[in-house]
Formats: sequence, C-alpha cells, structure tokens
Amino acid sequence: MTEKPPITRLHNVGKLSRVVSYQGTIYLSGLTAADKSTDTADQARQIFARADELLAEAGTDRSRLLFTQIWLRDIGDFDAMNAAWMAWIGDVDPPARATVEAKFALPEIRIEVQFTAAA
Amino acid sequence: MTEKPPITRLHNVGKLSRVVSYQGTIYLSGLTAADKSTDTADQARQIFARADELLAEAGTDRSRLLFTQIWLRDIGDFDAMNAAWMAWIGDVDPPARATVEAKFALPEIRIEVQFTAAA
Amino acid sequence: MTEKPPITRLHNVGKLSRVVSYQGTIYLSGLTAADKSTDTADQARQIFARADELLAEAGTDRSRLLFTQIWLRDIGDFDAMNAAWMAWIGDVDPPARATVEAKFALPEIRIEVQFTAAA
Repeated sequence: MTEKPPITRLHNVGKLSRVVSYQGTIYLSGLTAADKSTDTADQARQIFARADELLAEAGTDRSRLLFTQIWLRDIGDFDAMNAAWMAWIGDVDPPARATVEAKFALPEIRIEVQFTAAA
Repeated sequence: MTEKPPITRLHNVGKLSRVVSYQGTIYLSGLTAADKSTDTADQARQIFARADELLAEAGTDRSRLLFTQIWLRDIGDFDAMNAAWMAWIGDVDPPARATVEAKFALPEIRIEVQFTAAA
Repeated sequence: MTEKPPITRLHNVGKLSRVVSYQGTIYLSGLTAADKSTDTADQARQIFARADELLAEAGTDRSRLLFTQIWLRDIGDFDAMNAAWMAWIGDVDPPARATVEAKFALPEIRIEVQFTAAA
C-alpha cells in the first residue's frame, strides 16, 4: 500500500487550522484584523503583518504567494485596500488576486483575506 | 513530448464536475443541500454528509481536507453553522477555512460549501 | 540546501499577476470584461475569450480547468451566465465550479470569474 503524502497543520484552533501545507502548497485560513476598531487600511496592514508571520512559520514568505482572495465589507474601500496592499506587496512579484464585497461574522470586520502560497 | 498529468472527473453533470482530481489534490464543486426546505444547520448537515460520500468516491475523507470555503445566506447563522461543522469535523484535524455571506441561485439555499482536499 | 520549485508569473501588472504557475497548477486572477457596457451574457463571453488567451499563454486550455469561481452582480443572471458558460465549456469536460452573488469594484461589472487550471 502506498503511503499518502502528509498534510502539515499549524495553529489548529479546533474549527480550523490557520495554516495547512500539502505537497508544497500552503493554504491559509481567511485572516481578519486582531484590532477590529480601525479602518480598512489599518485592518489590511494588520492582516498582512499576520500573514508574514504565518508564512514564515510555514517556511515561506510573501514573495511566493500564488493566489489571494480579498473580501471587503464595503467595495468603496477598494482604493484604500490597494494602497495598503501595494505598501506590502510592492517589493515582490505579486500573486494572482480577486477582490469582491462580502459581509463577515462581525460587523466591525472591514476586510478578510485568504492566501494560497508556495512552500 | 511529455505526457501531461491526467485529470480525473467524477459526476460530470454537463456544466460542472462535482469532483476533479489532479496530482493528488481534489476540488469539489460548491455543494448545497438536496432538501432546501430546512434551516441552515440542517442544510449544513446534508452538505457535510454529501461531502463524505464524494470524498470517499475520490478515495479520501474529511481528515484530509485542505481548505473549505463556506458561504452563508445570512451571516447571522454563523454559530448554527459552526455547531454543525464541529459535529462533523470535530474528530479530525480541521482544514484552513474562510466564511463570508453571499446570495445563491435559489433563495431557499441557506449555505453553500466548497471543499479542496488531499487525495 | 534544496532549491524551491519555481513560480512563473505572466502579466505582472504591479498589484497582481494575471497568471501564476506552480508545480503544474495555474492560478488566474479574477477576470472581468474589458467592455463593461454590455450585459452579463456578453461580459461572460468576453471573460471566457480572455481566459482562452491566458490559458494558451500558460501552455494549457479550457479542457484542463480544475476549479472555477463565478461571482454575479445579480444572481438573477444565473441562467444567462450558464448559457454563455455552456456555449464555451460544452465541448470539453467541465471543472468543479461554485457561483455566488457579489458586488465588485465598479458598478457596471456584472460578472467576475476566477479560474484554476492544470498545466
């Protein structure tokens, strides 16, 4: 019988794992800001800083992002999000990306971001 | 010329395949409940039971989920969905996950779930 | 030290790459129609024609799609979208798919589509 390729999980919080690695591809859970009292640009910066930490734990970094899904509570914040995004991603080759409006589990959440990355 | 790695599809219903396997990664189509007359928790249970069947057909199971995207018709059903989710996923290591609110093709659909899994 | 598997990007427009390839899997950015003055069916046709071009540049084609995420500005356009989809995908084995309603960065955008494909 062939052994199946292993799955590695980090930060298993019960209902989800924040980081899942399999065959060189890394799936992060949707990230929201820890401090949800701030505006979209600041919540974005918090998310990107957290992503840096999680990607580092998984042995990779933002230069190896493959795809990023961005949800905004108000699509009118698209330019503000993009400014924060470029401040973060502007020094590396960017991933594929899609951005749409959506509502989240808490009304103060302005942005949620899901990353898929290469190991 | 190099042969390209094969793609395996199950339940090709014309406009989509319910299960697509490629290089050890399995993509399921977004699943909704067969009986849409029930509440979010029950629709979630129907979806998870169907996912178990489809994952088994693909030779894997819920312990090897990589990423799960959950859309709720009303994000106010977040806790009800999570209770059904934990009843299903609580005995295995969970995947990465993201949950947002969205509208679906039929108004009675309360929840749709898309799974990506390891073979 | 082991070399990490390479990531190939096409159409790097600064904030995103329209095509990202890694280990035989191809991630496209969310596509919208160039001419946004038209209806959902026509915007869908524009997107599918653009996807054909991008997939060809990446060395693959629509017969090797793995997963497709479709967002509609008005889920009432579901049937119109499906007719355009079948005209495009009807001659090949279809990918896994999920379709939900969402708002986009510009109000005239009626549909956005994100493709993941096999090389």
